[in-house]
Amino acid sequence: MPYYIGDVIRDPKKLIARTPEKFEETGIRVRLNTRVEGIDSDRGEVLLANGERLSYDVLVMGTGAEATLPDIPGTMQGGVFTLKNLRDGINIKEYIKGNSCRRAVIVGAGFIAMEMSEALRNLGLETSIVYRGELPVKKWDPAFSGVVLEELTKNGVSFVAHNSPVAVEKGPDARLYLVTDKEKIGTDIIVFALGVKPNTRLAREAGLTTGESGAIGVDSSQHTSREEIFAVGDCCESYNRMSKKWGHIPLGDMANKQGRVAGRNIAGYPMIFPGVVGAQSFKMFDLEVAMTGLDEKEAEKSGYSPAGNIIWGSPVARSMNRGQKLGLKLIADRDSGKLLGAQAIGQSGAVSRINVLSACLWGGMGLDEIGYMDLAYSPPFSGAWDMIHTAAQILEKKL
Amino acid sequence: MPYYIGDVIRDPKKLIARTPEKFEETGIRVRLNTRVEGIDSDRGEVLLANGERLSYDVLVMGTGAEATLPDIPGTMQGGVFTLKNLRDGINIKEYIKGNSCRRAVIVGAGFIAMEMSEALRNLGLETSIVYRGELPVKKWDPAFSGVVLEELTKNGVSFVAHNSPVAVEKGPDARLYLVTDKEKIGTDIIVFALGVKPNTRLAREAGLTTGESGAIGVDSSQHTSREEIFAVGDCCESYNRMSKKWGHIPLGDMANKQGRVAGRNIAGYPMIFPGVVGAQSFKMFDLEVAMTGLDEKEAEKSGYSPAGNIIWGSPVARSMNRGQKLGLKLIADRDSGKLLGAQAIGQSGAVSRINVLSACLWGGMGLDEIGYMDLAYSPPFSGAWDMIHTAAQILEKKL
Repeated sequence: MPYYIGDVIRDPKKLIARTPEKFEETGIRVRLNTRVEGIDSDRGEVLLANGERLSYDVLVMGTGAEATLPDIPGTMQGGVFTLKNLRDGINIKEYIKGNSCRRAVIVGAGFIAMEMSEALRNLGLETSIVYRGELPVKKWDPAFSGVVLEELTKNGVSFVAHNSPVAVEKGPDARLYLVTDKEKIGTDIIVFALGVKPNTRLAREAGLTTGESGAIGVDSSQHTSREEIFAVGDCCESYNRMSKKWGHIPLGDMANKQGRVAGRNIAGYPMIFPGVVGAQSFKMFDLEVAMTGLDEKEAEKSGYSPAGNIIWGSPVARSMNRGQKLGLKLIADRDSGKLLGAQAIGQSGAVSRINVLSACLWGGMGLDEIGYMDLAYSPPFSGAWDMIHTAAQILEKKL
Repeated sequence: MPYYIGDVIRDPKKLIARTPEKFEETGIRVRLNTRVEGIDSDRGEVLLANGERLSYDVLVMGTGAEATLPDIPGTMQGGVFTLKNLRDGINIKEYIKGNSCRRAVIVGAGFIAMEMSEALRNLGLETSIVYRGELPVKKWDPAFSGVVLEELTKNGVSFVAHNSPVAVEKGPDARLYLVTDKEKIGTDIIVFALGVKPNTRLAREAGLTTGESGAIGVDSSQHTSREEIFAVGDCCESYNRMSKKWGHIPLGDMANKQGRVAGRNIAGYPMIFPGVVGAQSFKMFDLEVAMTGLDEKEAEKSGYSPAGNIIWGSPVARSMNRGQKLGLKLIADRDSGKLLGAQAIGQSGAVSRINVLSACLWGGMGLDEIGYMDLAYSPPFSGAWDMIHTAAQILEKKL
């Protein structure tokens, strides 16, 4: 896989352009399609596939993550895809068009699978999701996963639960078969959406420490176990402020922030990456789905004494509601009364609530404060008591 | 004006119904259309218009506020309205229908005037806003007021600046004239939207203290200057956590919260109203307009050393933007680096950002924290760097 390689940015103000040629003008050398075979960390050299050695004073690892393919036969043939980057997306689209695909199977039921199902339905494909568990998006409360399942069904996506793939086969009537432990599903294209694992081969070979999650271990300045080597993005760990643990949370917004932090530290403007609370969201068809912080299980593992509660209500004033329903779950700590996490689902207003509650987590706020916090009330945007207030007050009573 | 009068709620759990009859069943007496003429606070009695005296141990003042009419001739005739409650809205609608109104004039340019202009345009009326100043919604930055003005123009509302009303007259050709210091504007209906003033006559006659704002003075438990008399809602003051001052901020969500706080204190479950940060929003046509906290002027008056900055960007990932533009202004304190206030305007995403920033104000967060805070990124809802992050980082550099 190609890596971009550049010197340390001498004058960040000149960094206004994005093409390799423009980078060159600012004194930054960019080498596209240049494979790195190894890192000689003792000598401070990067070993390129063409035999060249590049010496470095400071090295940044941004090797990303790779989409997971299951260890079953047949996954390497045409029509079988994973989805990690823009090129994968284009490849899938071209394959669908070039092969007049009419049926698609997605394996996995996380948020990439959900987004993918919408994209495939929009292209007119008969779409099935095959999943080993009972309900989609298992990071969310089962009540919310149920709403996601309804949304899939409403939009003509068939959800095949309790099925684990055992092979991909080529067949005479269908172009491909996904063989599971239960059945054999004919299809024209298969997309595996089973999550990602960090690309750490180079790092491990260079002697860098990896964390429990398998991703490269870093400190809050994005240093790896070697002072002069930094790691950022999907290849490294992040600190979760709520669980107080390091883990692998590969999301684009964190990668951006970590890159900035590493860059500042290298350029002599020290700063720390303050960690994450685990805020995330996706859209599928007409549904917003979002979460932040910990769920009850994670909270318990992290030593809290959690309680959770779901409320269903209106994201706007009832007088202006045109059928929208919002589900909001809060999780809080019985001992301290502090918010630990939140989940939301609905046609509108789910992400905005989760962002407010992420700020509350960031500020370490308790349910008592959240229940009476001042929000910008107006009937098109919330009731006089926002659902955030109501949810906090109800959960506070349950603690 | 009618007041609802009720005994202290003995069993809040029974309070599930809203009609007077249902209240009676729960042991609460509700008297509608019952005018209170005075309060004998020394004897603990409320004096009704019919001569009856009701004694009380605890009294809650919820006398609200009244829409302001200017002190000019002619405002008392038919076709001249203010807008404070549901009845006013129904009256305006009935008048428009009953008199086949074709033209409307709104005096004032605050957010009630903006909302009213949309309602009147939706009823098909030729609508003008007459205002003594230069730009609408003067609480917002002039750059944002300019966007509001564009939205008015785009939706066929004429904005007549620099005009102060001096009289309302009845004319032969038009049903009404609004006479200003500059011109004479023919119209069928006039709505004065010049703000509200708190109804404090009863409170003042009862010897209760009013604050600098003219509203009833209360403490954080909603007690007035007499221990046994509480005041809540638009008739009383609120504590602004940002300015650290008491003032009159008549908004529905605060009234709700204050009512709850007073009720709890009366019922023996002590709690304080934690104050407000000044979060507010409105919708006009296709525009969300919102603010929270202080602007530069208010911040200076409150002893801060403020700096502000506006950025314009996309409320969603650029790849998914369909022409939406979002303006976001942050105001922060040069000395502490803390956020002091924020304003936002755009077709979407303005209120959600202001709510996040209100939570940041509530938690006393600094720009450094806000610039790297974890929000639920997904392309349909924001860029990988949300505009909140970018705005905080840019303003931090300017401090």
